[in-house]
Amino acid sequence: MAEIGVSGRVQRSKDAVLKTTNELMSEAGIGGVSIDEVSRRSGVAKTTIYRHWPSRSALLLDACSRLGARPDLPDTGSLEGDLAALVGYLTEQLRSARWPTILPSIVDAAERDPEIAALHARLQAGFAAPYLVAIERAKARGEVPADQDPGQIVAAIYGPFFYRRWFSREPIDRAFAARVVANVMAGIGRA
Amino acid sequence: MAEIGVSGRVQRSKDAVLKTTNELMSEAGIGGVSIDEVSRRSGVAKTTIYRHWPSRSALLLDACSRLGARPDLPDTGSLEGDLAALVGYLTEQLRSARWPTILPSIVDAAERDPEIAALHARLQAGFAAPYLVAIERAKARGEVPADQDPGQIVAAIYGPFFYRRWFSREPIDRAFAARVVANVMAGIGRA
Repeated sequence: MAEIGVSGRVQRSKDAVLKTTNELMSEAGIGGVSIDEVSRRSGVAKTTIYRHWPSRSALLLDACSRLGARPDLPDTGSLEGDLAALVGYLTEQLRSARWPTILPSIVDAAERDPEIAALHARLQAGFAAPYLVAIERAKARGEVPADQDPGQIVAAIYGPFFYRRWFSREPIDRAFAARVVANVMAGIGRA
Repeated sequence: MAEIGVSGRVQRSKDAVLKTTNELMSEAGIGGVSIDEVSRRSGVAKTTIYRHWPSRSALLLDACSRLGARPDLPDTGSLEGDLAALVGYLTEQLRSARWPTILPSIVDAAERDPEIAALHARLQAGFAAPYLVAIERAKARGEVPADQDPGQIVAAIYGPFFYRRWFSREPIDRAFAARVVANVMAGIGRA
């Protein structure tokens, strides 16, 4: 029982730290997260925080990796079906998830802070991965010419969504999402 | 002579304030710009700064509007030609201009600060304007179906560039730019 108690206390401390980190990120972006402020608001001692996360960047990476930005991998049998599933999920996330409010603060800090740039690169790899798998599968099926650059296709999909969410701030609905997929398929030459 | 002298001193003060504001933005994004810090570093009194710009947002807007983000309006006679000219300019700007380093800090602050969101909307309108004019001209020539949403086309162009510059951080070269235009033209049905 004592052992379970200790483990439970450790888990409660970690949960409190991550919850507070998420709150601070939602309120002010990652610029609002300092170990001092996390400790003050969560009531968890700084020494305890540093025992679990050796640096502010490590805590941010852990908190960001739990934001649910990574989509599941669909396998509908066609590129168009896979892309439709992926952008359907993305459309929902951009509407209702918390990470779209936080990501710009990571992108901004990444311009000047190499540790945050590395954190952003890891998050970014998670964003791109399911699209890259879908494109490779489509190549194996002969749906996409072998010489097409997967990165260009991923940019053609994510680009319009990210542009609309953070730059033009126009609505992102199913019609917009369907048109993005249709444009990408036209660009691949299979519309 | 005295009159010219006063006007020259006013202009020198304004230039010093804008130069310092630009430096601070380049170093740390707009989060690094406070009237206190601009005054300290430029040597121009806060009262003088507030005489020319009634608020921090007004100073930021003025400084940002001078960053050269707004492209000239080409008129090549075809949508493909106009888009090629516009993305050629954009490719150069994303490589060498200062605003790409600063814009993420504006996007981030716009998530939480309505005044910065308004500033961003004005900058964004400047970005979109030449593309919208080129698309309207193409519609008038019958190159683009009347029912196509210009905003969707602008998102299909800017999106991949912005995605690559700030999210995937992959190189942006002429081949990438040409492929973005080719994809957009394919989506419009004129490839």
